[in-house]
Amino acid sequence: MIAKTPQPPYYAVIFTTLLSDNLEGYAETAKRMEELAQEQPGYLGIESARADVGITVSYWETLDAISAWKNNVEHTEAREKGRTQWYKKYVLRISKVERAYGFEN
Amino acid sequence: MIAKTPQPPYYAVIFTTLLSDNLEGYAETAKRMEELAQEQPGYLGIESARADVGITVSYWETLDAISAWKNNVEHTEAREKGRTQWYKKYVLRISKVERAYGFEN
Repeated sequence: MIAKTPQPPYYAVIFTTLLSDNLEGYAETAKRMEELAQEQPGYLGIESARADVGITVSYWETLDAISAWKNNVEHTEAREKGRTQWYKKYVLRISKVERAYGFEN
Repeated sequence: MIAKTPQPPYYAVIFTTLLSDNLEGYAETAKRMEELAQEQPGYLGIESARADVGITVSYWETLDAISAWKNNVEHTEAREKGRTQWYKKYVLRISKVERAYGFEN
């Protein structure tokens, strides 16, 4: 799904990952985190795809909304499992969306 | 591949797409555009994945570098084919990366 975001400015968290070989519990937690993110104040949408890398982009109204989501207890526990078990490598980038263009046939 | 980007600030172009049923020539052009992007001044890296949506994030030193790539003739022709043939829908977001964190096991 392509996220239906408002006019910029807003924020995008670009989370790019390489998975490890130990994915026990990963799929359930990833799904739960997507659901939980949607309940957070300032959440605008999410887009996710995986090939050799996984890319998940979540969109937020403000940097404060991103910080609050980062500090969510269940999310913090999931990140700890990510670091110790599921991910071989990741990069997380916090960016401010300045312009956006769309097209639909 | 996860892009090896420098310390922020830099720019991310987040390109999220839904494909049409008419993909003749798409794979070759997508590959060519990735190669051509890498030759552009100010190019920093690219990440790409596809599930039900495709997400390609390219990273650039400046907004001017993004504009120059947008105006590249071969890229402009490819975008036209994208709009008329390959894509059912897309959203392109230009964002400024303000912070980045990495992790590697």
